[in-house]
Amino acid sequence: MISSVTVTAPASIANLGPGFDVFALALHQPVDTVKASPAGELVISGIEGPGSEKISKDPSKNAVTLAAGRALEMMGKDLGLRAEIKKGIEPERGLGSSGASAVAGAMAANELYGGGLSETQLIEAAAFSEERIAGSLHYDNVTASTTGGFVIIGSFQPLRYTKLDPPPMKLVVASPEMGAPTKKGREILPKSVPLQKAVINIARASSIVAALKDGDLDMVGEHMIDSIVEPVRASKIPNFEGVKEAALKAGALGVAMSGAGPSVFAILDPESEAEGVKRAMKDAFERGGLGSEVFVTKPGLGATIKSAEG
Amino acid sequence: MISSVTVTAPASIANLGPGFDVFALALHQPVDTVKASPAGELVISGIEGPGSEKISKDPSKNAVTLAAGRALEMMGKDLGLRAEIKKGIEPERGLGSSGASAVAGAMAANELYGGGLSETQLIEAAAFSEERIAGSLHYDNVTASTTGGFVIIGSFQPLRYTKLDPPPMKLVVASPEMGAPTKKGREILPKSVPLQKAVINIARASSIVAALKDGDLDMVGEHMIDSIVEPVRASKIPNFEGVKEAALKAGALGVAMSGAGPSVFAILDPESEAEGVKRAMKDAFERGGLGSEVFVTKPGLGATIKSAEG
Repeated sequence: MISSVTVTAPASIANLGPGFDVFALALHQPVDTVKASPAGELVISGIEGPGSEKISKDPSKNAVTLAAGRALEMMGKDLGLRAEIKKGIEPERGLGSSGASAVAGAMAANELYGGGLSETQLIEAAAFSEERIAGSLHYDNVTASTTGGFVIIGSFQPLRYTKLDPPPMKLVVASPEMGAPTKKGREILPKSVPLQKAVINIARASSIVAALKDGDLDMVGEHMIDSIVEPVRASKIPNFEGVKEAALKAGALGVAMSGAGPSVFAILDPESEAEGVKRAMKDAFERGGLGSEVFVTKPGLGATIKSAEG
Repeated sequence: MISSVTVTAPASIANLGPGFDVFALALHQPVDTVKASPAGELVISGIEGPGSEKISKDPSKNAVTLAAGRALEMMGKDLGLRAEIKKGIEPERGLGSSGASAVAGAMAANELYGGGLSETQLIEAAAFSEERIAGSLHYDNVTASTTGGFVIIGSFQPLRYTKLDPPPMKLVVASPEMGAPTKKGREILPKSVPLQKAVINIARASSIVAALKDGDLDMVGEHMIDSIVEPVRASKIPNFEGVKEAALKAGALGVAMSGAGPSVFAILDPESEAEGVKRAMKDAFERGGLGSEVFVTKPGLGATIKSAEG
């Protein structure tokens, strides 16, 4: 019997412009870490890390234990686990924080009790938690945090997805100091869209997939524009357009909102210097009256079992 | 000076399910053939082949001469050409008939006078003709007929497209005996669509691109479904759903309307027998009271200069 398991799950960027609820990219950094040990019920022994004060310690409301509980149900095990949570991904920044915690929880439960859940089942367990917390069923972040790389959600019921390995790139993420809970970010969405805008998004999203497969970062960046969801959400973020423009001027190949925001990310050639883009994005947020944390990362692997003690 | 040039341009299937105005696939057969020789103005010396009685012989209304005239304008040549047109692609069947003629016309003009137009310019000249004839600017068919293979239109203004080589496959095309002018097929389209349907189409279209790149025909077929445009147009085609179901039951991997219809096409594994699917589609159209022409083809090359006489 395993006495404890430590799992990390990465942050992720959803949508990438035109791929609302369809695209997501796993990041190399930051990650959430969950150390879990067997227990008869679901227990949270501690939460630390940036933003952890915003996260519920009630196991029926916490992403780690919600997803772990769902995974245990799928495994047919009437058991729980004790979770020690170390947040690396700040919540409400649009970086898939709750999704990463959920993935780590589902994977820890599966590993602890040798449940043999498939990758798709782990994703479904994590998505169940996301539905409870964010209020809507969407698979993008949790799938990327599970599989790593770039994912395309092909259908929701049943869940079908494709993972592809994106070409090397640098990512600059600028996360302004304002919260943007996903639930609120979804409430303001339009119920319908002009056909012409839907067509444009289909065109851009399809082009991004081809460009990622071809390793053509310029073309990825060029098509990383959303005409449907981002403009609505952008109106809530001070100087969002200014941040975009500044990053592009400083050499970014493409810029978009990360998930429901408020974080904004830019893609860069892997060989290029990121300092200018970092500075440009930080300064532009400042002109909008917001401090921000800006960091450089790259595409990353999915959730990983770091250690399991027997 | 070239005394005459013969150009062929292939039929094409637009949309492929979720990619309205974005996806198109060039076919190996049928093709239109244009033999052109220098002239001071635009002249049509003859049109033959299936459905040629429906095509205008007035150079200001014919796809070949409209596109050739536009190409000459782009080349800055105040000249014309004499065109002898051999239609292989029946008009109003949703197989890019006017688009293929336009591509052949633009390419013939360029070849005759050594204009050096780029591929993108040839496509733009052909699309100009399509706008005049079909009443709306769409690049899908003309791009596929120009480049061959599978194309993704990434943006309209400016025109950006990606061509990819699809994996080997068989295509069964069933073309019922009813006309469906593209112009009418566009008039009935919805002005707006539910966000959820737009998302589903983005998901499917993106998945198709990944699947084509991966050579995964099963996944192409699975996602070859449109929730936006095809259902509206399908209501005008007797037993459309029956044709689809019959083809799938007979072993097709995916079935969709070709362009604005009424033709329906199915994709099959390249090694599989197509007879059962052909029979099933023909029989299903008959149950809807329609005779049909059913043929087997495969993805093909773009427009080709067959001969140029000095």
